[in-house]
Amino acid sequence: MKYFTGVDLGGTNTKIGILNENGEILIKKSIKTLSEKGIVITLKRIWQTIESLMDKKNIDKKNMCGIGIGIPGPVINQEIVGFFANFDWEVDINISKLMEKISGIQTKLENDVNMIAIGESMFGAGKGSASSITIALGTGIGGGIVINSKLISGINGAGGEIGHIKLVENGKLCGCGQKGCFEAYASATGIVREARSRLAINKKNLLYDSLKGNIEKLEAKDVFDCAKSGDEFSIEIVNYVGNYLGMGIGNLLNTINPEIIILSGGVALSGEILLEVVKKKLKQYALPITLKNLEIKLGELGNDAGIKGGIALFLTQ
Amino acid sequence: MKYFTGVDLGGTNTKIGILNENGEILIKKSIKTLSEKGIVITLKRIWQTIESLMDKKNIDKKNMCGIGIGIPGPVINQEIVGFFANFDWEVDINISKLMEKISGIQTKLENDVNMIAIGESMFGAGKGSASSITIALGTGIGGGIVINSKLISGINGAGGEIGHIKLVENGKLCGCGQKGCFEAYASATGIVREARSRLAINKKNLLYDSLKGNIEKLEAKDVFDCAKSGDEFSIEIVNYVGNYLGMGIGNLLNTINPEIIILSGGVALSGEILLEVVKKKLKQYALPITLKNLEIKLGELGNDAGIKGGIALFLTQ
Repeated sequence: MKYFTGVDLGGTNTKIGILNENGEILIKKSIKTLSEKGIVITLKRIWQTIESLMDKKNIDKKNMCGIGIGIPGPVINQEIVGFFANFDWEVDINISKLMEKISGIQTKLENDVNMIAIGESMFGAGKGSASSITIALGTGIGGGIVINSKLISGINGAGGEIGHIKLVENGKLCGCGQKGCFEAYASATGIVREARSRLAINKKNLLYDSLKGNIEKLEAKDVFDCAKSGDEFSIEIVNYVGNYLGMGIGNLLNTINPEIIILSGGVALSGEILLEVVKKKLKQYALPITLKNLEIKLGELGNDAGIKGGIALFLTQ
Repeated sequence: MKYFTGVDLGGTNTKIGILNENGEILIKKSIKTLSEKGIVITLKRIWQTIESLMDKKNIDKKNMCGIGIGIPGPVINQEIVGFFANFDWEVDINISKLMEKISGIQTKLENDVNMIAIGESMFGAGKGSASSITIALGTGIGGGIVINSKLISGINGAGGEIGHIKLVENGKLCGCGQKGCFEAYASATGIVREARSRLAINKKNLLYDSLKGNIEKLEAKDVFDCAKSGDEFSIEIVNYVGNYLGMGIGNLLNTINPEIIILSGGVALSGEILLEVVKKKLKQYALPITLKNLEIKLGELGNDAGIKGGIALFLTQ
């Protein structure tokens, strides 16, 4: 039996899992990333963890066939990182080669959302489909585009940076410094921002009551919960967000025409209430031919998607 | 030597060319499409023309290795047409198989703009690059996306239908029936529409003078010509169009991150004046990482792009 390792390198925690060749996770562990110690020490700590997990499962090193690492930043050619979204690490270093030197195992890198996308495509919601777009709706919006089981990583690693397609000319300021980005409207941050801005002038609603006036405590989930309870104020915010989510997804459908859209991340967990608005709005934004036989599904792998992406890189890329 | 045929099936005229295996066009001919005679008779007339061209070049049928046909409509799996943009022909017919029965030669279909894109990618402005997006700026806006030398045709043949990505929520009505499409703002039709709307209330400008008051005669080229002559009124329209062209292209860059953007079609011939606005606007709309080493080029194959796409389908797809 062959084995692979999937690593999801996060700003705070790093998730490491060992998989068999069928993509089943045999054992996994989360460690603190401690990025302040630098690249080399972090990679060594990851390799030590992999070794201890292999020991526990009696896996011989010679059967470990590849390590796939998801990186918070653009990855070029599956080996070089353009920049790190969260850390202060040096860029343009061949991390893949560095990890191969430390571990002796072939190593491939990918952007973390691309890892989720290829994981969902191969083992999750997109299983059996040749083309899918995974949209990670969380603090920001990330994307991963899979065509014929291969990622569109982009020449500088920015393939699938869909959170920054512009939906509104001169619109809301985004964290990237540009204006009118998809992410500024339909991410959790965007939802909270819109809700707070409305709450500043309208306090006669369930959402305000449920927060007991502490607007700073507001999370995207609160908006969805109140909308589900019938609060008109919150329903309007859901409609507002769903409209832009539909516009963004519609633009992707008209560009790529995939079989499946996979929604993952925290916002996607809001479930049917948001999805219903999106489906209605898509009729306004997507060409009818792109909606024919289109499936819109929630991600199925949760936090394991990135780890499963690790083996997917070796099986399909 | 192996030979291939490229066919560009148009609403009025059909261009047919025979190429050698290096992609050089040896002979070509344009015939009237006469689509009202139906699919079978049209395909037979195309095949008769191919035969007469082969005769003239002393090419034996056994060396004719493939026919690639560009179709005005979405093409599924390189053989079935979703619908015809210009004709009244029956849909969901396997035209590829039909042409193979008539000619005895392997036949592949693609959307006509996709044919231009793969032709430019392999033999024109994109030669030597693995990824490019070709944008055909004419009466409408079409697109073709090439990644690793393969087209993203889409599951229903609607890959690259970028003319219908939405840039303005509830914006200008588009020919497709939806609102705010890229094509409604940055195609030749969009330019003429904006210019006419402005001319209705401002007649003190070079553009109006040059038309001698006959606004109906206005073409996109007139706007560019007057802008080049320094007419402020026309320069403002070029800026308006260039802004949306930059927004549309920026959205594609953030999604695909290609090496090259290739502009083809009539509007692209306006040259530097529009391109300069677009390049400036891209800094506002595209993530900086997608602009690193990006080339924006004009198409190099002109009317031959579609024919050269015919052989490209066999060499790369």
